[in-house]
This record gives sequence, C-alpha cells and structure tokens, in this order.
Amino acid sequence: MSKHQITFLPYNISTIAPAGSTLIQAALDAGVHINASCGGEGVCGKCRVRVEAGSVADGVSEQLDQEDIQKGYRLACRSIVTGDLTVRIPVESTIDAAVLNRPASPRRSARIQEFNLEELKERGLFLAPVEKKFLTIPPPSPSDNLPDLTRLIGFLKLQHDEHKLEADLSVIRKIPQVIRQDDFRVTATLVRPVRADGKTRIINIQAGDTSSRSLAIAMDIGTTTIYGQLIDLISGEVRAEHAEFNAQISYGEDVISRLVYAEKPGGMDRLQEVVIGTINKILGKIIRRSGADPQDIATITLAGNTTMTQLLLKVNPRFIRRAPYVPASSIYPPIKARELGMNLEDHVAALVYPCVSSYVGGDIVAGVMGSGIYRTEELTLFLDVGTNAEIVIGNRDWLACAACSAGPAFEGGGLQFGMRAAKGAIEDFSFDPATLEPMIMTIGRVRPKGICGSGLINMVAVMFEMGVIDNLGKFNPALNTPRIRRREGFYEYVVAWKDETQIDRDITLSEIDIENLIRTKGAIYSGCMTLLAEVGLSLDDIQRVVLAGGFGSFVDLEKAMTIGLLPEMDPDRVTYLGNGSLLGAKMSSLTNRIRRDVAEVVRKMTNFELSETISYMDNYIAALFLPHTDLRQFPRLQARLEARRINPVA
Amino acid sequence: MSKHQITFLPYNISTIAPAGSTLIQAALDAGVHINASCGGEGVCGKCRVRVEAGSVADGVSEQLDQEDIQKGYRLACRSIVTGDLTVRIPVESTIDAAVLNRPASPRRSARIQEFNLEELKERGLFLAPVEKKFLTIPPPSPSDNLPDLTRLIGFLKLQHDEHKLEADLSVIRKIPQVIRQDDFRVTATLVRPVRADGKTRIINIQAGDTSSRSLAIAMDIGTTTIYGQLIDLISGEVRAEHAEFNAQISYGEDVISRLVYAEKPGGMDRLQEVVIGTINKILGKIIRRSGADPQDIATITLAGNTTMTQLLLKVNPRFIRRAPYVPASSIYPPIKARELGMNLEDHVAALVYPCVSSYVGGDIVAGVMGSGIYRTEELTLFLDVGTNAEIVIGNRDWLACAACSAGPAFEGGGLQFGMRAAKGAIEDFSFDPATLEPMIMTIGRVRPKGICGSGLINMVAVMFEMGVIDNLGKFNPALNTPRIRRREGFYEYVVAWKDETQIDRDITLSEIDIENLIRTKGAIYSGCMTLLAEVGLSLDDIQRVVLAGGFGSFVDLEKAMTIGLLPEMDPDRVTYLGNGSLLGAKMSSLTNRIRRDVAEVVRKMTNFELSETISYMDNYIAALFLPHTDLRQFPRLQARLEARRINPVA
Repeated sequence: MSKHQITFLPYNISTIAPAGSTLIQAALDAGVHINASCGGEGVCGKCRVRVEAGSVADGVSEQLDQEDIQKGYRLACRSIVTGDLTVRIPVESTIDAAVLNRPASPRRSARIQEFNLEELKERGLFLAPVEKKFLTIPPPSPSDNLPDLTRLIGFLKLQHDEHKLEADLSVIRKIPQVIRQDDFRVTATLVRPVRADGKTRIINIQAGDTSSRSLAIAMDIGTTTIYGQLIDLISGEVRAEHAEFNAQISYGEDVISRLVYAEKPGGMDRLQEVVIGTINKILGKIIRRSGADPQDIATITLAGNTTMTQLLLKVNPRFIRRAPYVPASSIYPPIKARELGMNLEDHVAALVYPCVSSYVGGDIVAGVMGSGIYRTEELTLFLDVGTNAEIVIGNRDWLACAACSAGPAFEGGGLQFGMRAAKGAIEDFSFDPATLEPMIMTIGRVRPKGICGSGLINMVAVMFEMGVIDNLGKFNPALNTPRIRRREGFYEYVVAWKDETQIDRDITLSEIDIENLIRTKGAIYSGCMTLLAEVGLSLDDIQRVVLAGGFGSFVDLEKAMTIGLLPEMDPDRVTYLGNGSLLGAKMSSLTNRIRRDVAEVVRKMTNFELSETISYMDNYIAALFLPHTDLRQFPRLQARLEARRINPVA
Repeated sequence: MSKHQITFLPYNISTIAPAGSTLIQAALDAGVHINASCGGEGVCGKCRVRVEAGSVADGVSEQLDQEDIQKGYRLACRSIVTGDLTVRIPVESTIDAAVLNRPASPRRSARIQEFNLEELKERGLFLAPVEKKFLTIPPPSPSDNLPDLTRLIGFLKLQHDEHKLEADLSVIRKIPQVIRQDDFRVTATLVRPVRADGKTRIINIQAGDTSSRSLAIAMDIGTTTIYGQLIDLISGEVRAEHAEFNAQISYGEDVISRLVYAEKPGGMDRLQEVVIGTINKILGKIIRRSGADPQDIATITLAGNTTMTQLLLKVNPRFIRRAPYVPASSIYPPIKARELGMNLEDHVAALVYPCVSSYVGGDIVAGVMGSGIYRTEELTLFLDVGTNAEIVIGNRDWLACAACSAGPAFEGGGLQFGMRAAKGAIEDFSFDPATLEPMIMTIGRVRPKGICGSGLINMVAVMFEMGVIDNLGKFNPALNTPRIRRREGFYEYVVAWKDETQIDRDITLSEIDIENLIRTKGAIYSGCMTLLAEVGLSLDDIQRVVLAGGFGSFVDLEKAMTIGLLPEMDPDRVTYLGNGSLLGAKMSSLTNRIRRDVAEVVRKMTNFELSETISYMDNYIAALFLPHTDLRQFPRLQARLEARRINPVA
C-alpha cells in the first residue's frame, strides 16, 4: 500500500498516511483537531478543510456549496487520501496552537506480528505435518496378488522411500475402489508423526495425481465469535476465511452462563450441537468460497478457552466454575472430526489445542505458540484482553500465567452507551481542549450508536490528560460547557447530541461508566503486577509486550498507558498479535514443530490463581486510580501532566 | 474326569473309557461290534449286552423285560459307564472273532492342544496387555488445582511408577465425575503398547478399587457360526462362552453368496448390521451369564476369514471373488467397538486379526498363532477344513499357505442324506464285516436324520477297507445283503431303514455321495501335496500335523488316512486344535506378545494360489481314488489291505 505525506496548516504538522485513509483519520493520528460530530458520515458538515496542494478523492457533500468546492473545501471525514497533500484547517476548527504543538498523545498502535510459511522454513521451524505422494502402481496379477494396502505401502517405500507407514480404517475402506479408479494411479495423503519415533499415517487415498492440493483448517472457538481459515499447506496461504457469532450465545453471553446452562439436563449436548452448527456453517462457507475439494483437507486444528474446549468435546465442564476450578484435562488426543459432528471427510482429524487451567485455555496457549514467546530469550508479557484477561510472562526458559476477570467494559458491557465494536460504534475520539468540542469517528463512518472499548479508552485518556476528569474519574465541575452536565449524583459528558446520533438520544459518558472502566483496567494492571511479583520480577525486566485478542488491534497504546490499563513502556516494544488463538491454530496446521513444542509449553506453563494471591487485592486497590495511586510507575505521563500544570490550556 | 476299564467278552478286549460315556461308545472306540441301528435312542433294542462285573447307570428300557434286567442285560446305547466293567456281547451281535482281533482301525483321535495363562508365563510369552491400577489421590486445592487427568497421570507415576501415559477422550469425558465419586479413590485401566517404544494408554477410569476385575472378549466370526468367550485377564480363564449361527446365513450359506449379496445396493451395510446383531446377542449372553460389569471389559479381539473380516469392518469385498483375488488389506488398525455397532462401553477397542490373502484369512492366522507353529522348530502342516480348506506349512523360520475349495461334503452338502453335525446326525459308524449290519451312533443319541462329515468319513473308510467298495468308491455288487441295492445307474447302502429313522425314509449312502467325498478329500490332499512341492518338501519332512476347525474335533484320524483325506502318518504326531480362530483371539487377548508377533507372522506367510500352480490339477486327479492312485503313499493301509486279501473275512 502506498503512503503519502500530509501537512496540516496552519500548524505545519506533517504525518504519513496510507492511501485510502480519510483526512480525518490522518488528522487524528497526527493529533490535529478538526471538529467532527457525526462519526464520519458526512452529515454534520463541521469538518470542512481546504485542500491547498494535491487532491483528494471524494470529500464533496451537500454541506458544501459550489463555491466552497471550487475553493478546495472538502469534508475531512469523506476525503480519501490518494497522494501527498497540504490541508488547511479553517478557523472554526482551530484552537490554541500551543496545545497543538504539544500533542498529548499522538496515536501509537503496536506493530503487527506477521507470519508466513517461508519465515518458518527459514527459522528451521518447518516440519511438514502432511505430505501427498503420487504414485503409479503396477496392477496385481495372479502371481502377485498382495492386498491393496500392502501393495500401496510397498510402492510408497519403493518410489518415495517412505517407511514405518500405517493406514487408517477409512483408507482401507476406500482403497479397493480408489486404487482401480484411475488404473492404479493414486495419491496418498501422509500425516507425519509429531514425535520423531512415531509412524507416518496414511489418512487418505485419491485417484490420480492430486499432490498439488493439500489443505487444512484452523479455527478459533471464541465464546462470542468463531473464526475459521482454510489454509493451503503448500503455499502457507489462507485461501478463505470466515467468522460467525458462536450460536451458543443464545444460551448465555459469557462463559459462566454457558457453564450454568451446561449443567441443565441435556444442556451440554445441546451446547455442543449448537457450536458444531456454527463450525459447520463456517466450514461450508470457506470450502465453497475457496472451491476446495473436501478430500484435500487433512486436518482441522481448533483452539478455544477451556470452557469452549470442553463443551466442543462434550467433556463435562461442571468443575470449571467451582473452586478450586479444575478442568478435566490439559491435553486432548486427536479425534475424528466427523465423530464430533463436523461436516468433513471421514479421514480428517480434529486437533484440539491443550489448556493450562480452567481460565487459561487453548486460545492462550495457541497465542503463546503463535507469538513465539516460548522460543525467545526476551522476557515477554503476553496479554489477551476480552471479558477475561489472560496474562503470560516468560520466555524460552519458563512461563507463568494467570487469568483475571476484567468485566465486560471493553465489549460494551456495564456502560450506559457501550456496544461491541460494530458499525456505529465510536472508536476514535479527541476533543478541543479549549471548547471541549469532540472529534469522533465511528466504525463504518456512520452516525454514532454507542461507544466501543477503544473509543472508551481514548475518551477517558484524553479527558484525564486534559484535566477534564481527575485521577478518580470525576469531572471538573468548574468547566463551563454545555457538554458537561449533572445528573442524579454524578456528572456526564455528552459525546454526541441526540440529533447527531442514530438512536435519538444524547450519547454520554458518565462518571459511573468511567468507574467501571477503572475497575476493569485496575484488574488487568494489577493482574500483570501481581504475576510479575509472584515470579520475582518488576516491569523493568519486561523486554517485550504482546497484545492479543480483538481488543489489542484497535487500542491506542499511549492512551491505554495513560489510563493505566497497560504499564507504561516504549510502544516500540509492543507487538500486536491479532487473533492469537487463530494464529496458533494456523501455525499448528502448517508445521509439526509447533505441535511437538506445545506439549512441552503446556507442561512448562505455571498457573497462578490470582484469587489465591494475597497481594492481588492490594495491587487492585492501588490501581483504582487514573493511572494509578503511584504516578511514578508512569513517568512519561507524569512529565506530561507536570508540563500541563505549568502551562494549562483551559 | 475319572476313567474306567471295560472288558468286552467273549473277545477279552479291554478299553479305557471316561466315566459318563456310553457302553456303545466304548465298544466303538475298542473296535468291538454291537448291532445298533437306532443311533443310540434306545428304541431298536438290538444292542443288548450283559454286564457281568461292575454296574452301569441307566441302560434299562421297555425293550428289556424284568427277567433280562435281573440277569444283567442292558442296552449298550443307554448304559452309562460309572466304574470298571466286564461286559458280554450276546451271540446275536458276535461276529467272527478273527476279525475282531484284527481291528481294522481302532479309533484314533488327535491329542487336544490345551493352553493356559500359566503356560504362557512359563514360556516367557506373557506380556500383560491390560493392567488395572488402583490409587488414592489427594484432592485438589486452591493452591494445587491441576487438571484431573494431569493429577491422575502424576499419581500413577508417583504411586505405580507408570510413565509415557496417554489417555483416550472417553477417559477425559468421564474423569471429572468418576474421580470425585469415591473421594479421589480410582482405578485406571492401562492398555500396554504392543511395541516396546509405544505409549501406555489409559482407556478407562472407575471409582473405587476394581483392580481385581479385568476382562476381555475373544470372538471367532465364522461364515456359519460365531463363537464368543469372556476371558478373565487375571486368571486366564474363560468365564463364559456362547455360540450363535451367524445371522448373515439368511443372505447366503457360504462366502461366495455373501460376496454376491454385498454387491447389491445396501448389501454390505445390511450384512454388517446383521453380523453385529449376532455379535451383540453373544455379548449380551456371555456378559449376563458371567455377571460381569461391562466397565471391566478392556478389549474385544475378533478373527474371521477375509470376507467375514471385510464385511465386519464395512470394507468393500468386491475384489475378493474376482481374479486375481485381492483383499483390501492384511492389517487393520484398532477400531472402537462401539463405532462398529457393538454393545460395549465407549472405551473398548476392537482388535481384528490380520489376513494373508483373500482365502487365507484372520481365522487361519489366529490358528497359526494359537497353535504356536510359528514359534517351533518342528516343520508343521496346519490344516483347517471346512467348506474351504486352508493349509499352512512351515515353522519359526518360514511359513507358506494356500487355500482350496473343498466343497460342502463335510458339512452335509452334496450328499443325499448329508447334514451338519447336529442332533440326529450319524457321526459314528462301524459294521459287521460278515453280515454288513451297521452299528451307528448319532449326535444326541436319537434316531438318525442324516449323515454328518465324520460319519461319512467313517462309513467310506470302513467300507473301503472291508472291501465293500473299491478304490473308485464303487460297491461290490457280488455282496449278498439287502442293505446294498441298485438304483438308477448306481448302487447304494442302506445305513438305516425307514422305520429306524426320524425322517420316514431309508437313509442311504450312494456311489454318488462317495464320489463327492472323493472329490473333496482329493482337493484337500492334493492341496497339501502341491503346497509341499511348491516349497520343495515331501511328506516325510513334516514332523507334526495340526488340525483346526470343527471338523478336526470329531474325525477319526486313521479313517481319514484310510480314505486319503489326510496323508498317512503316526497319529501321535497329530494335534487337534479345536477352534483355532477362537484360540488365537483368546491368546491375543491374554498377551501382547501374540499381537507383537502376529504382524511379523503375516509378513512372513507366503501365499500360494493353487489355481495358478500347474501341478495342482495333476495332484488332484491322482487323488481321486481311495486312498490315492499311488497306494505306496499309504504304506500302513497297504499292509492292512494286503493282510485282508490273504485272509478275507467276507
């Protein structure tokens, strides 16, 4: 993707933006304020800017008259960057330049960890899990009438130097027909053993030469969403991918309510049936969409949290939610996908990621495998934030893990106008410190419906840093703006007025909402600090942070540090993994090296129950401030706040 | 069982008979003739004898008046031996003493090969396939909440020094409930690897201490009959056994008709369903009868011919009956018994005996394993005779095998009055060489309904040796007896008159029947000779003969040699194995050593297609005589015939 330089006048601030982004996005990233209250839909007309050099695509609207357009005015939220630009922010949006030249928190998002098959090969991490061998076998005769399978194995040895082979019953069932179908020209699918001393299994036989087609499926079984990928085992590429909401949602939004439902008569079977239904829907789509022959699919690798895993495999999860929180097993043997009800061929094995404990599941183990933290020397903090937050600390020598209940604040729960990261959710926010007028951006660039996790973090961080709220999350009542108003016993800030929204109500952020966020971020931060202390380390020892989960992809790192959700550290040391669970499942599909390592990793991961750790509650209480009771843990923020105190803008 | 001496007067011939046998049986065994034509039912009254010393149980009948009984007269067919006896044969049954003192063929049946667990242990052949371990595990706590399975494995290591363990999904599904049921006191069922480098699998977990109960099932899947045994893995004893006709019989009596049916739409699935039905019937009976807990059953081992095996596993048998007669596979992986439809617990694996070729199946391989011929230095001829005859020659260094179609003569097919070995079948026969009056004995001691295989062999042997039929099987028309009579173009002998039978018709043995027998025995004998020649040996090299199958148990060895069914040899070198297929299945259940060896045995067994061997037809034609064109191959018989020629009785 090409990138372009954009210079904002009158401040003369330049930023680099990828082609295709909007001008308002570029301004947000540069810390340049433009009034904008319709979320990017182009209806409020407030974000007028004048393009003085270069040109943009789109950007015109009925909010602009012909003369404006002639002069180069465009709506920033509808203007698409296609080349280098110089853009002037008109007077109605300008604010005190002193503030602008001291951007509180330029957007910093983490590097995304990329991964491909070539890299695995280069790093010596590639051990083919599946190989197809084509061979032409002389037909049997009266004097040479060995069994079909014996003949196949004999010629695999002769023509391909294959030894220690064994075959599945499904192959034996097919071989008489298939071997004769194309006159004894066949392709055998070989699955390599994970341990070097194991046997190679023949899992499939196909007529003719299909050796150029070899596929696998990776899936992340999330409590909310299930993601599936169809992976080409020869190129390493994802041929198709698709996500669906986990249909178990009808039986409870979160893990605990699923566990409760599973204890009802027939409940566990029903939940299994339902999740298989979603899996089959995804399988159908990715297979159809990629035009794949289901015969070419060798394996399906699945990763999910412990509850999702036990429900998928019909293993009673009763004791997961009862102290002392014991799961049935950490490791699961390969199972026939069809036996679980999946619409895949008879020969396909389902490989399920192992779990560590009731609340550090296969999704986290997969993330650890996908991120490679178990292979590096660097001491890493791995963090997967969703409703629960799972924390892993360690490196190639040791690994410690813990889980804490973060609460649903990042997924829109416990927030008056909270919502999931879906169309209409305010995901980006900034405001004019002088006027307190907001600049909001919604997912889908439509009028706002609510606030999602990253929007919430951004709002609270900006408000805190600008002194609009204090370190307890309380609004400064002295501020004179209609956007801050008192309700029964608390204050709230109007993010979007009723007529700018899709919901015909003012969208607000209240002190109660902020309190919820503080509890959530406090749980996560104190979880990290407690686990660090348990293993005898401090933050200074951490060399790298890996963020996994949907949350990590959108969060503005500096802002997350500003509110004390993440420990303060150089953003360059933070990597964003994306869906670590899916990545780990994909990597296990692509190389046996991961499957070999994972058993060792699970053995190595020491689980800490934070509820059993005395210091956890102390740490938690200390973290119920913005950013923390002890501001010295956030020295960069401390410096910025200090500067603001000396030179206040409002 | 106690044995008693019985002396027959006036000949002064003594014999040893087990308590419980009948006097007529003892007489037959001693070669003493007593007229008897009702098969042992006690209605013809012809078999009157006088007990002069000792006493018998039963033996009285309305055929004897009070005075006879007082004098010691009894019916031999109803008199049960309970002690030593002296018995006088009355004048109406006596014949020329010269003949009696020269008994043509005293009954010789083969030694029965016994087998038990202690013997296996003594011979170093015992490798426990299944072991149960009881353990008391400390319950989990907040500070020690490892997964249930991890905990179980840890304490199996600690308390029982068990390493390299892995668990089936069925165990993981049960563990959360079962481990808590008796307060963390559990018994784990461990299945040992067949190869030394394999892993031990935990296949079951039970609450409390069940370590004294460990069971397995062995089954022989015959085309006609299915035999099942419930085996105690600790004592090695058979706790219950039961046989049922294979319900597939409704779809065809023999293998070929089953193969034809399997090609019809839905045919293979139907046949599989039906055989599973029979298996489940047997399982139900032996489990109920023994009072076993199905949870204690670890494995089911099955052996059957190649067609039965492929039908059982739903492997298309289409190419078994088409040249060049190729089966799908020789070796089958373990399969879940439940997956095949068997009414056994989830954890039970079905272990299926490997096959060599389309007509040398798992039943024969099991017989080879059960007989131990693959372990001995002695060169052995192994023969399993049914509708087909399978021949194995070899020892611990090499093994060769072949099959030939024997035809159904031994099972009553192709014989006007032929029948299976069932109640009412004439199984034993002798006659008075002077009067040609028969002495017959039926199965169940009831009036005769027909002739079974062993009866047929006995009749033809006696008739041939006594000169009643010639070496082409043709009756001597010069003999003056109403029992030999001419029909359209052939002669026949009346074995039982209409009013002595249950079928209200004379039961006869015709020249056409004898021709059928000659073709059958010719096929088997020439099969043996051809296979011997193919491996460059002669009969003299054979040190031991093992007879397997239902046929072998009843056949009179000398008589089988007289007609040229078996090569002539010292009967002491012949062993009767009984149901070799069931025995092999039982041994595989009891020790992994057999399962380890069997893969090697199957690799070692070289299959010869007799139809592809030019000399087979020549050998066959030479064998279409009694006993053979070349009488010199039967020197003992030759000597007896010579003696009879010099001193004829008739």
